[in-house]
Amino acid sequence: MEAAHRGKQSFVFDEAPAILSFASVAGRKEAEGPLGTSFDRTAKDTKFGQKTWEKAETQMQKTAMTLALQRAKLREDQLDAAFVGDLLNQCVGSSFCMRDRDIPTFGLYGACSTMAESLMLAAMSVNAGYCRRALALTSSHFASSERQYRFPLAYGGQRTPTAQWTVTGAGAAVIGQKGDGPFLLNATVGSIVDMGIRDAANMGAAMAPAAYETLRAHFDDLRTSPEDYDLIVTGDLGKLGYQIVKALFDRDGVKLEDRYQDCGVMIFDLERQDVHCGGSGCGCSASVLCGHLLQRMRQREIGKLLFCGTGALLSPLTTQQGESIPAVCHAVTISAERS
Amino acid sequence: MEAAHRGKQSFVFDEAPAILSFASVAGRKEAEGPLGTSFDRTAKDTKFGQKTWEKAETQMQKTAMTLALQRAKLREDQLDAAFVGDLLNQCVGSSFCMRDRDIPTFGLYGACSTMAESLMLAAMSVNAGYCRRALALTSSHFASSERQYRFPLAYGGQRTPTAQWTVTGAGAAVIGQKGDGPFLLNATVGSIVDMGIRDAANMGAAMAPAAYETLRAHFDDLRTSPEDYDLIVTGDLGKLGYQIVKALFDRDGVKLEDRYQDCGVMIFDLERQDVHCGGSGCGCSASVLCGHLLQRMRQREIGKLLFCGTGALLSPLTTQQGESIPAVCHAVTISAERS
Repeated sequence: MEAAHRGKQSFVFDEAPAILSFASVAGRKEAEGPLGTSFDRTAKDTKFGQKTWEKAETQMQKTAMTLALQRAKLREDQLDAAFVGDLLNQCVGSSFCMRDRDIPTFGLYGACSTMAESLMLAAMSVNAGYCRRALALTSSHFASSERQYRFPLAYGGQRTPTAQWTVTGAGAAVIGQKGDGPFLLNATVGSIVDMGIRDAANMGAAMAPAAYETLRAHFDDLRTSPEDYDLIVTGDLGKLGYQIVKALFDRDGVKLEDRYQDCGVMIFDLERQDVHCGGSGCGCSASVLCGHLLQRMRQREIGKLLFCGTGALLSPLTTQQGESIPAVCHAVTISAERS
Repeated sequence: MEAAHRGKQSFVFDEAPAILSFASVAGRKEAEGPLGTSFDRTAKDTKFGQKTWEKAETQMQKTAMTLALQRAKLREDQLDAAFVGDLLNQCVGSSFCMRDRDIPTFGLYGACSTMAESLMLAAMSVNAGYCRRALALTSSHFASSERQYRFPLAYGGQRTPTAQWTVTGAGAAVIGQKGDGPFLLNATVGSIVDMGIRDAANMGAAMAPAAYETLRAHFDDLRTSPEDYDLIVTGDLGKLGYQIVKALFDRDGVKLEDRYQDCGVMIFDLERQDVHCGGSGCGCSASVLCGHLLQRMRQREIGKLLFCGTGALLSPLTTQQGESIPAVCHAVTISAERS
């Protein structure tokens, strides 16, 4: 194989692995949003028939995985690997989804960048021949996140203007060596960037510089520019983070225009749904990618997509200890055609 | 590149990436144990000069990484990727170590299997040409684990006979395309196994079946047997888990003999140091591998090592919700020679 490495932090997939199938699951609020009809399964019950919100998260992952496998006409034992992770402490949403399935499993922690990280690693593994078929899977849940990161829901705390709303949702994609696509062409791995934001209710501002750095590296490493993509989406920067990324590129004389969007802004009607700066969580970019975006790619409405997962790598404890918020962004180029 | 996939869940590295350098850091109790002289850095201060135990964990990772890079005569900007993770909620030990270093970073969560998972992914990336040099790094800290998973230290809770002692330690290894070795030959990715153990103070019993399953798959997929290795080590099963793995193989008519050992048993004098079943934590197998074991391989005292990271994928919350403990084991073959 030709050396895949490009520039500072990118690489190309010479075999362009295919997304064989994908599926998305979302909660009630997401179903009521602008992308509501694009999710494969939605539920009015925020517990998805389970006893706890954490088990609901596992249930959403199971549903997304099962549906994606059905669509690819694959059995679980035909997966050579799964790349999974979520926001719950010790990533238990994913581990409990994958237990006793006999699927070789790599656990990831990339916070809300997990859909991009898992896609990237699945594509790397398939492209290099380590796996024939690999699963990328993640989720988040508003209620499990709220009580883990912020306040008990019953407390009814006031949300600040920069706050985001954790998406209840999951996304699954099955990657294989051959197929009709869309295809994964290349990836840019993010470095961890911390610009000193200490407000855990302003994660958009904390993540925006990481998104900017990874996008810059991507364009430089692969000698592309924004015009080479029909759509560039970040994961969950929300309205403020989105504006910061646009402003950072403006400063460089690069106009991203409407070619650039953010899943956290797309998934909710920000005013009507009272979600302040927009959606967040692993499930945000996962359910938008594995629903709306990949559906539009299959319909050839989007030819080339630069999908950028963004994650804030804080914990409640680091905030209590006075720390600022490190963030990361991973980017993957997805194309309707093989090149 | 030839298809790397083998059997059910293994693959081979046709270019056999080299471990360019490695380093280990450990705490005072570990320094007083049987492997005390093998750690590169130890500290009497359990906070490693920091204000909190969590920051101490980041500090240990920094020290291990810096030392490994120095030994490989590499600057940070010569790393194309880092594969990092730890036990702290949201893996903050690792994210805070890697922030603002300009090193493309993949966050992992494999609980105590992280050293094997990170080594495996680093070798996969280097072997396939995605990276020229990659870092594998992890840590754990007795005090940060104890308060996160169990009780505040000041509470002075009584430990049960099957309890293990989380190792305060870190390990780092730099993987490259060329070098004098040791070399990474192949890997077996574990599936998540849950045999129904619900006692969070008996993680050895929870993890032993996962270790058995991965070892069985490894021998089957790669057509090897225990005699093909000078040493087989599991990460942190402790005395009880170690005995269970031996018993499971005995049942199959396979005698592992003294060829099989466990890092959790090796790192402490179980009786003298009052650690009950032995050591645990990501830092256990990481500091034993990146100290004692790789040193012995460099000295040709061990020719072929099967290194098996073992992880219990529970959280305090899943235990509170009455759940049993899923576990995983990843195995990597490390050889003093290139084949």
